[in-house]
Amino acid sequence: MSYFEAIPAIRYEGPQSDNPLAYHYYDRTKKLLGKTLEEHLRVAVCYWHTFVWPGGDIFGHGTFHRPWHQPGDAMERAHQKADAAFEFFTKLGVPFYTFHDTDVAPEGKDLKDYKENFARMVDYLEAKQQASGMKLLWGTANLFSHPRYAAGAATNPNPEVFAWAATQVCHALDATHRLGGENYVLWGGREGYETLLNTDLSREREQFARFLSMVVEHKARIGFKGTLLIEPKPQEPTKHQYDYDVATVHGFLTQYGLQNEIRVNIEANHATLAGHSFHHEIAMAYALGVFGSVDANRGDSQNGWDTDQFPNSVEELTLALYEILRHGGFTTGGMNFDAKVRRQSADPEDLFYGHVGAIDVLALALERAAVLVENDRLEQFKRQRYAGWDTELGRKILAGGYSLASLAADAAAHGFNPQHASGQQERLENVVNQAIYAQR
Amino acid sequence: MSYFEAIPAIRYEGPQSDNPLAYHYYDRTKKLLGKTLEEHLRVAVCYWHTFVWPGGDIFGHGTFHRPWHQPGDAMERAHQKADAAFEFFTKLGVPFYTFHDTDVAPEGKDLKDYKENFARMVDYLEAKQQASGMKLLWGTANLFSHPRYAAGAATNPNPEVFAWAATQVCHALDATHRLGGENYVLWGGREGYETLLNTDLSREREQFARFLSMVVEHKARIGFKGTLLIEPKPQEPTKHQYDYDVATVHGFLTQYGLQNEIRVNIEANHATLAGHSFHHEIAMAYALGVFGSVDANRGDSQNGWDTDQFPNSVEELTLALYEILRHGGFTTGGMNFDAKVRRQSADPEDLFYGHVGAIDVLALALERAAVLVENDRLEQFKRQRYAGWDTELGRKILAGGYSLASLAADAAAHGFNPQHASGQQERLENVVNQAIYAQR
Amino acid sequence: MSYFEAIPAIRYEGPQSDNPLAYHYYDRTKKLLGKTLEEHLRVAVCYWHTFVWPGGDIFGHGTFHRPWHQPGDAMERAHQKADAAFEFFTKLGVPFYTFHDTDVAPEGKDLKDYKENFARMVDYLEAKQQASGMKLLWGTANLFSHPRYAAGAATNPNPEVFAWAATQVCHALDATHRLGGENYVLWGGREGYETLLNTDLSREREQFARFLSMVVEHKARIGFKGTLLIEPKPQEPTKHQYDYDVATVHGFLTQYGLQNEIRVNIEANHATLAGHSFHHEIAMAYALGVFGSVDANRGDSQNGWDTDQFPNSVEELTLALYEILRHGGFTTGGMNFDAKVRRQSADPEDLFYGHVGAIDVLALALERAAVLVENDRLEQFKRQRYAGWDTELGRKILAGGYSLASLAADAAAHGFNPQHASGQQERLENVVNQAIYAQR
Amino acid sequence: MSYFEAIPAIRYEGPQSDNPLAYHYYDRTKKLLGKTLEEHLRVAVCYWHTFVWPGGDIFGHGTFHRPWHQPGDAMERAHQKADAAFEFFTKLGVPFYTFHDTDVAPEGKDLKDYKENFARMVDYLEAKQQASGMKLLWGTANLFSHPRYAAGAATNPNPEVFAWAATQVCHALDATHRLGGENYVLWGGREGYETLLNTDLSREREQFARFLSMVVEHKARIGFKGTLLIEPKPQEPTKHQYDYDVATVHGFLTQYGLQNEIRVNIEANHATLAGHSFHHEIAMAYALGVFGSVDANRGDSQNGWDTDQFPNSVEELTLALYEILRHGGFTTGGMNFDAKVRRQSADPEDLFYGHVGAIDVLALALERAAVLVENDRLEQFKRQRYAGWDTELGRKILAGGYSLASLAADAAAHGFNPQHASGQQERLENVVNQAIYAQR
Repeated sequence: MSYFEAIPAIRYEGPQSDNPLAYHYYDRTKKLLGKTLEEHLRVAVCYWHTFVWPGGDIFGHGTFHRPWHQPGDAMERAHQKADAAFEFFTKLGVPFYTFHDTDVAPEGKDLKDYKENFARMVDYLEAKQQASGMKLLWGTANLFSHPRYAAGAATNPNPEVFAWAATQVCHALDATHRLGGENYVLWGGREGYETLLNTDLSREREQFARFLSMVVEHKARIGFKGTLLIEPKPQEPTKHQYDYDVATVHGFLTQYGLQNEIRVNIEANHATLAGHSFHHEIAMAYALGVFGSVDANRGDSQNGWDTDQFPNSVEELTLALYEILRHGGFTTGGMNFDAKVRRQSADPEDLFYGHVGAIDVLALALERAAVLVENDRLEQFKRQRYAGWDTELGRKILAGGYSLASLAADAAAHGFNPQHASGQQERLENVVNQAIYAQR
Repeated sequence: MSYFEAIPAIRYEGPQSDNPLAYHYYDRTKKLLGKTLEEHLRVAVCYWHTFVWPGGDIFGHGTFHRPWHQPGDAMERAHQKADAAFEFFTKLGVPFYTFHDTDVAPEGKDLKDYKENFARMVDYLEAKQQASGMKLLWGTANLFSHPRYAAGAATNPNPEVFAWAATQVCHALDATHRLGGENYVLWGGREGYETLLNTDLSREREQFARFLSMVVEHKARIGFKGTLLIEPKPQEPTKHQYDYDVATVHGFLTQYGLQNEIRVNIEANHATLAGHSFHHEIAMAYALGVFGSVDANRGDSQNGWDTDQFPNSVEELTLALYEILRHGGFTTGGMNFDAKVRRQSADPEDLFYGHVGAIDVLALALERAAVLVENDRLEQFKRQRYAGWDTELGRKILAGGYSLASLAADAAAHGFNPQHASGQQERLENVVNQAIYAQR
Repeated sequence: MSYFEAIPAIRYEGPQSDNPLAYHYYDRTKKLLGKTLEEHLRVAVCYWHTFVWPGGDIFGHGTFHRPWHQPGDAMERAHQKADAAFEFFTKLGVPFYTFHDTDVAPEGKDLKDYKENFARMVDYLEAKQQASGMKLLWGTANLFSHPRYAAGAATNPNPEVFAWAATQVCHALDATHRLGGENYVLWGGREGYETLLNTDLSREREQFARFLSMVVEHKARIGFKGTLLIEPKPQEPTKHQYDYDVATVHGFLTQYGLQNEIRVNIEANHATLAGHSFHHEIAMAYALGVFGSVDANRGDSQNGWDTDQFPNSVEELTLALYEILRHGGFTTGGMNFDAKVRRQSADPEDLFYGHVGAIDVLALALERAAVLVENDRLEQFKRQRYAGWDTELGRKILAGGYSLASLAADAAAHGFNPQHASGQQERLENVVNQAIYAQR
Repeated sequence: MSYFEAIPAIRYEGPQSDNPLAYHYYDRTKKLLGKTLEEHLRVAVCYWHTFVWPGGDIFGHGTFHRPWHQPGDAMERAHQKADAAFEFFTKLGVPFYTFHDTDVAPEGKDLKDYKENFARMVDYLEAKQQASGMKLLWGTANLFSHPRYAAGAATNPNPEVFAWAATQVCHALDATHRLGGENYVLWGGREGYETLLNTDLSREREQFARFLSMVVEHKARIGFKGTLLIEPKPQEPTKHQYDYDVATVHGFLTQYGLQNEIRVNIEANHATLAGHSFHHEIAMAYALGVFGSVDANRGDSQNGWDTDQFPNSVEELTLALYEILRHGGFTTGGMNFDAKVRRQSADPEDLFYGHVGAIDVLALALERAAVLVENDRLEQFKRQRYAGWDTELGRKILAGGYSLASLAADAAAHGFNPQHASGQQERLENVVNQAIYAQR
């Protein structure tokens, strides 16, 4: 049975095609800097937005009419959902997918149910992967939807909730391992606070660190070779989330000695909610040595919540991909579409339009980013700008060769009178635009 | 000669007084929790906003007519400014003041000038302190106004600028030491970036860490016993400042092993620009062990820049002071008014209205915070809320007694089915309001 | 049968009471400026947040266990909900409530069902009102939750949706009239756009104006004497809502000649989402002659969505109530709590804590606002500040007695050289704080 | 004498040129939809940012070393500045410029000075225009920098300040007329408030309306045929500006019967500060019939103030220009660069990089917008989406053929049961990207 009967497999037809259900730029086999587009971008479709979300929002009911959302036996629906998902993945022609435990299997009424349902669905997913060639970019556990997690999971005031969360992550990490997942993600949905009046920050941070340490240890124990990833987000649903942004996560990991064990999964919309650009968060993750993977989406500059729209700015993504490319590209990470069609986009075709357009945007941006890497103009300017630090003075300072007083003495002795030099921001912005818009 | 002739020394006259130039709540000798209000609040007036700023903004010229701003010999004006400042401090009756090196002395045309001018003015300030009994809460150096600092100070692409900055900090820290300053503050005005296109984040962070290490070493060398403080701010004047917020600063310090050497000076308006509440930043600083001092002011929720208004919310400050009181109160820190009267408030009286009102607000908030500390209702609720972590299960988890798998096994064996318990946020908010508004 | 058995009727016990389920300030019979607190504040409880919302959010399921939310016959549950609601209203001791049509009656499967269900529930509500003495502050229709309204109601691209919306408003306005409602509210939940790419702004504004005109005409036809109110909100759920803020609504009404027919219902949290203060929106509504009523709540300055928390700032509400009082107080409007307890506040007690605390805050703020009205200091300063406009020059300008050229000529002839006079903002802020904090 | 000796006249060299001081896309004579790029874009360079601003910000002194900023005779410097400006305009090869009265002439010490200085400089500008062929897009008056305007100009509490402002506008409008300006702009820099506590909103709005009416009348009197424009901005320097956004300005104009006399000059960065997209403000201005001209720049999504950067997003400007093109293009308006190079971009070359890059971005965006106009896909979708309003039902509703009750009756009689139809947002976003990125 087909869930997307009217829709053909999406193929690359080139820039001039008028077919809205074809790729215009994403020629997956095309090579760039020694790798194919598919190998560079490592695109993943997420289960939750695309197959689980019914199209509801805080002011309105679901608008989508998905067959697998209809009332009926929960496990039967879960199998239908998996069938629909793999049909979609295959028609889209992307290599990866991602899921939460409770996206793929019904939670059931207790821990026993949870485990049995999940185990059966993992079997089913394994079979689907083998049949289709699809791979799992990462798995994760939903530790935020059930009422038991209203006050957090690892940071819950009740240790039994911590234990429930541990159970879910144990199973989700095992499943990810078994399904060949290349990463495992922890998003701290409600690991934060609603009000400081009832919150013990020190205690909750300790709990969270303990939880992460247990995950690190479990990974070693089962021999999972993938990467553990934390996904920063500053707020929503909570007033404040502990994993606020990349710098905060890195600081937390460093405090607890976990900075070499866990990396970050950076979401564009979370970056902007935290008051940063997407580019900033990626650059900061590389500077701090914790870059892992990306949740590709976009927010709305006029709306203060996580809109999770499909990315559609080549300009923004060129900078993001430039940063990734010049650091050598993804290793275990990839581009997961943590993105959903709008609530009004209720037709199955809309799911395809959203993904196809976004994948083309990634392909376009990758190509432009490669131009920037190859022409090296940005880096050239930086090398020249910081050249002073490669002189004797600069080296000696950085090597610890000066005290404040001895440097002050030297400055006086040499009569330093440094003049400001232009940062040439406008010229560099033109360099980027030329890489994006010069026809090739 | 008097600069504020028309204005009498400000005295405590009690809540019923109609005198706008009297304290209605700040009775400095009144005792609360074993200390006087003066000892608790450790109020400081800043030099820059109150005596240096001419009342200009980015769209308009100065509106203030201060005698010491008039054209003339720079050193003569600097002495007049000091006279005016100490007259103001004394009339206000606060114990502390704060300054940047270039607030108190003209920069001059080169390093030699800078040093001589500053040295003469430090002599003069020392004499004024002795004559008045005023104390220095902290000193700092202005590493952001001069064009040489356009691209940063310690993080400048030019190491000679680093050397200039080192010179200024060396002298400003020496001066702070000599004047008996209780802290020394580093605000990274332009330690950040305007565009990532010309910025090497890794390199600039290294430079910054080196600079801080040199300051730490200099402090030890001269025997300065005060506290070194970094003042977080997320942006402005730069697009992005490296000392974004308390968590980011703590992460940076931890990465470079400086977390026991440097603490934070938290400004209310910087907290809100970073997407946090003032209360949050203080609570986080205590949770991370780096709380130092406070720049008391407020921003405008409708304006996205640093308005540096005088604090006027007892409600907001009660929570801030509650957090400080329940952690034992200030040690070397205090309440510095990094606040300026509005550009339209051009009269000398306005300087007094701003400070008097804000000091009264602090006094009111302190009293309410003390009620919350004494009635202990918030902490009582927290103790009960987290009680589960003091049971055997909770203790064993935190002590590392469980792996993910063994905890999952225990959860299954005991059939854990934890239910959400109310966080009672609304009741706790009522507890706070009762502390603020119940007549005493 | 009682739904809140454990909770007694809430009584006024005075500021010193330790009972969290008592009023400490809201002594409804106390008189101030010639009216009782009850007459001034005209408090209303809303049906939707308090009796309909299950405690879910976009990331999680409902946490509340209300008997009337359990599965079962929809009309039976609707009656239970009404019983619970009126028990709550009565125990709280407030005079008013508010509802949407679909809060009180199940929508059913078609228009016929809708009408019959609603009609039966209106009968029931009428009986409950008579039995309890409760009054209806306003009714409204839910034109945003059902999927048919995904693209708007009056502004929908499909005129049949407009017709559905007309049907609901027709019935909801009739019901409001019959139940003695004092106002009727229109909140344009999805009257806006998600993307300009598929939106015809001109056409949608025309549709909206037509709809409003039909409502105005229907009001006249049925003899409803209450006030029609539009509730401004800038965005959420849509990217952009046409009723952005008070000024925008007034402009729209003026363009279509409706400015004397419709007023505004101002919500605090909507004001802040629109980049304004609550005080601003109220002051602007009075300046534009369209002030109607208030949705009392608060947002979270750190969160960019409509958090709809209970108001808890006396400082903020004092300014709001001062504005209302000095314009003569509410006429048909009142203080509706468009506020919900937090998702974690899952117990029935929390509903009471939320309302009791907020009503006390209103009572405190009203008392302080009355002090400001009585001491008249703010208005005195304004009269003096603008005194120049009562001179001959000022009067002549405003009366149209000058052209640009003749005024320039006069300015030159008289050698005008006006100097800036202090706006004394800090002193006036102190005046407000003295009204709030001076013990009485 | 040349001020930009090292820099040649900027020429079009095509996309492949590596010359950073050449146009790669702005071929001014190229035709598109029947007009040249020059005729479409009507680019203007502003005097204030480019020739007046010294590169200072609120935390630092000027960094630019412009010869005409050096100390010296004010009128001599003004002539040098004009020489530099016209050399720059000419080298850039744009048709228009814009200025404030006090940009081009020193204010002097009194009204007499002001008039004489300005008159002499207008003579000089007229000669420069004739010699160069440059045209004036618009003139304006600076009613916000001088201390007298600290509390507003037309809305000042002192009518003598109103008279000063009237004098300046009278002269600036006369000068604009004489110099053949195509528009005259009013930006209400401080027409707003810092605090509601000292502000009479009703009175200030009346003053502002009177002022505008006088300007309208003066325009008629002198026979100026250009367009009067208000430039909306929500805040900064004031806390709140009365000309908040396009809708607010239109409402204000409508209230005072000025909606056919005055149009809007929309600035991109002001749009985003007001919580809108640039596209939104332009679309709204057309929907309200008040579109006039554009201040082309960009803000920084992470910074809450007016950064006035050069526009560099083809993606954003394609939508803006699409809106303008499909409404027939500019009439008297144009694209004024209200944009400044960054404070670090201190070299004269940077002025060129900023303008050249931005003009190329406009050219690219114009070309893509023309594709969207020509392929008509967005409009096609809209026509189909709203087709129901062209049926009998739709027409009858809009024509006033229904009352609420009769429409409800019809809806019931016909058993309306409208279903939501997809808005296809993602597909339309792909249509836009295809117009931008498909090679031609």
